[in-house]
Amino acid sequence: MFEKVLIANRGEIALRIIRALKELEVSSVAVYSTADRKARYVQEADEAICIGGPQPASSYLNMENIISAAVLTGAQAIHPGYGFLSESAEFAQLCVECNLKFIGPDPKTISLMGDKANARQTMQQNKIPVIPGSNGFVEDLTEIQTIAQEVGLPVMLKAAAGGGGKGIRKVTEFDQLAPALAAAQKEAQISFGDQRMYLEKVVSPAKHIEVQVIADQFHQVVAFPERDCSLQRKQQKVLEESPCALLTPAERQQLQKLAVQAMKAINYENAGTLEFLMDQQHNFYFMEMNTRIQVEHPITEEVSGVDLIKEQIRVAAGEKLAFKQSEITVHGAAIEARINAEDPAHGFRPQAGLVRKMNLPGGLGIRIESGIVAGDQVSPFYDSMIIKIIAHADQRPVAIRRLENALQEFEVDDLVTNQRFLAELLEQPEVQKGTYLTTYIDQKFGAQFEREQEAKEEQTHED
Amino acid sequence: MFEKVLIANRGEIALRIIRALKELEVSSVAVYSTADRKARYVQEADEAICIGGPQPASSYLNMENIISAAVLTGAQAIHPGYGFLSESAEFAQLCVECNLKFIGPDPKTISLMGDKANARQTMQQNKIPVIPGSNGFVEDLTEIQTIAQEVGLPVMLKAAAGGGGKGIRKVTEFDQLAPALAAAQKEAQISFGDQRMYLEKVVSPAKHIEVQVIADQFHQVVAFPERDCSLQRKQQKVLEESPCALLTPAERQQLQKLAVQAMKAINYENAGTLEFLMDQQHNFYFMEMNTRIQVEHPITEEVSGVDLIKEQIRVAAGEKLAFKQSEITVHGAAIEARINAEDPAHGFRPQAGLVRKMNLPGGLGIRIESGIVAGDQVSPFYDSMIIKIIAHADQRPVAIRRLENALQEFEVDDLVTNQRFLAELLEQPEVQKGTYLTTYIDQKFGAQFEREQEAKEEQTHED
Repeated sequence: MFEKVLIANRGEIALRIIRALKELEVSSVAVYSTADRKARYVQEADEAICIGGPQPASSYLNMENIISAAVLTGAQAIHPGYGFLSESAEFAQLCVECNLKFIGPDPKTISLMGDKANARQTMQQNKIPVIPGSNGFVEDLTEIQTIAQEVGLPVMLKAAAGGGGKGIRKVTEFDQLAPALAAAQKEAQISFGDQRMYLEKVVSPAKHIEVQVIADQFHQVVAFPERDCSLQRKQQKVLEESPCALLTPAERQQLQKLAVQAMKAINYENAGTLEFLMDQQHNFYFMEMNTRIQVEHPITEEVSGVDLIKEQIRVAAGEKLAFKQSEITVHGAAIEARINAEDPAHGFRPQAGLVRKMNLPGGLGIRIESGIVAGDQVSPFYDSMIIKIIAHADQRPVAIRRLENALQEFEVDDLVTNQRFLAELLEQPEVQKGTYLTTYIDQKFGAQFEREQEAKEEQTHED
Repeated sequence: MFEKVLIANRGEIALRIIRALKELEVSSVAVYSTADRKARYVQEADEAICIGGPQPASSYLNMENIISAAVLTGAQAIHPGYGFLSESAEFAQLCVECNLKFIGPDPKTISLMGDKANARQTMQQNKIPVIPGSNGFVEDLTEIQTIAQEVGLPVMLKAAAGGGGKGIRKVTEFDQLAPALAAAQKEAQISFGDQRMYLEKVVSPAKHIEVQVIADQFHQVVAFPERDCSLQRKQQKVLEESPCALLTPAERQQLQKLAVQAMKAINYENAGTLEFLMDQQHNFYFMEMNTRIQVEHPITEEVSGVDLIKEQIRVAAGEKLAFKQSEITVHGAAIEARINAEDPAHGFRPQAGLVRKMNLPGGLGIRIESGIVAGDQVSPFYDSMIIKIIAHADQRPVAIRRLENALQEFEVDDLVTNQRFLAELLEQPEVQKGTYLTTYIDQKFGAQFEREQEAKEEQTHED
């Protein structure tokens, strides 16, 4: 086992990793920007090093400073968390060169899966069903027109290097293909310096179903019960649950088998997530892979009883997986709410400022993952997520009600958050039944959000 | 199911019961003393009624005011929590007379088990091993001398109506029997208006092992994996864990069988706990029964997956137990710390005052049961326990470490608490191994406490 690990991240995920390291009796090194000097995770770590200014580019994305911090403190490994450098093949490569273990897959795999067109092709080659569309990336308009004709409209044009909704265009008419391609390529060039595109049929309505996997260095791969992350607002996950209420045990097993097969084919190491779309007939289509731990990993921990972060660290240190596929069963149901400092009445505009007071919910089946405490400042420089509340129960309806009660108990002054929106969401029949699809929130609440925003803006003008 | 339930308690257990009622979709009525007007549980209840002044006798022990509050609000049942009126047969009887369901056993059973000499005799008659000693209560010195001769010294003289360490004397020499009897009787008369005594051999060294049971109105009884509550300071539980590290699965099953047998014999209804002493040869001796939910019930919930409070309410409403004995298994290990506002360096003197700030621990396997939030006053009128931290993990050493980390994360300003003492306790080899006995804390730390207290007092005198 490592003696010391550096956490190249901040907030709740940094604290989550520090707690795991404490249980493993491994020393922890936190890195922080000047904006995070007094953050809770910095205080909980055994050591802490300032790596730059508040702008992510100066600190949490500053590879040289992070590597220097690791070398300086004698850390043997780096846990990247999620976001920031967690899916940077360049950073993972830099770790290799500096003799630091990157807690995640090797740079080549990150690179392979990070290129969405390549990932798609790799899965296709390994008999994993993908969304009908291009075979690898496409450049030529004629080629794109032919494929669109074959799979049928609407289609999505997507940047191979894509992420964060950039370089993506939905096309519903054939004569829009050419201008959409030009626009998407231009955007992709600006955002990623890479204008390669691929094409996929639009699978909709659909559910976003993802499979957590973990693999050790001895080619052992275990896949966990699926997460249903279909409750999204503008491609951002809002509430996540495990297992999916609509899947049969046989479908679950089939999906896990598929995920293990894919991971063995690419000789994957460490934790990762395979994201699928599931259509109304419960057909699965591989969408993309995240080669890192995800925000919603706690719901999988609750239903499986496995500590995924500790397991990531253990397998990175060369240990064998502590469990077999046959030992992974579904214990009840878990659901997670991401509480963001954002204003639903103003287009979910992120909020920043002092957390004067905070009262956390608690009790049976309630787990809190929080990066902040009362007295902290929520910084405008980072993600607006302030805490995650995870509810677990033996039955799905109990887990939902438990989360709803917890959302009502949670109090934070004086930041505006999405907590009331989340509580309202949990009361909708589609959520109670588990039938919601990825389009649900935007369709159901989209108009309402716009109306509220307009009303508030008018009011502001009148003031 | 009931439509409305009144909670005749305060603090964390009142909030615990309110949360359970919310999940059952039952309305909750909180009662509060003038000192608890702004308490968190009062805010979380659907309704709240002031029942008197801060002194317990004026409010939480004021039967008439509580019954009136229940009648006034149209509550159909009363949950008594622990402490206060939870083991008052008189209060339970008053509930019966006012057509209110008391969530607990019937008054006759409370009365039977509340009289320690009768409880002892009842268990003996039902073939439950009891501590060698008198058969029922004893009055006569000659009789006491004969029994003491038979069982051997040391012995305990105990008041039949006993509780809170009153009316109890340990006797190590025969010639002390007479003065000890006189002193204990006098104290019992003053404390309980009842000077009846019984005698037990001192079983020491021993472990305090207790078995949680729950029974429905259809004579179905289920016993849970045992709790080891041997970590006590002056008869007060400090840390509790489940299961006991020293018990074999066969011993566990045997103990549960014994508990079920006892409960069927007395036709018990609702939740209760049978307390046993276990000697070095793993013989069990019935000590007493608590006819209510206990402070440490969450560790049983964690290892069994059963929500005991919801189950109490369900069976009181006439529903059948939701599970069978065969479905109760041990999932990992759980350990609970009671964080008290008290000063270990000054004889654990209770503290009161403003909670200016409070940062709770969290993360995987950490459950918080708290009655207070930042901004609250800890009142000198009540129990000094402010929060409970429960750690659960797949393995005992992980649960212990998790609790230790949580104790280190917990921050409360500006109250002195026992948290550092608890963290120190968790590091002791006897605790790590699980071999500690009821005498452990007083033997190991007793002298230290006294020295520290003397040092502090001298210092104070010098100032």
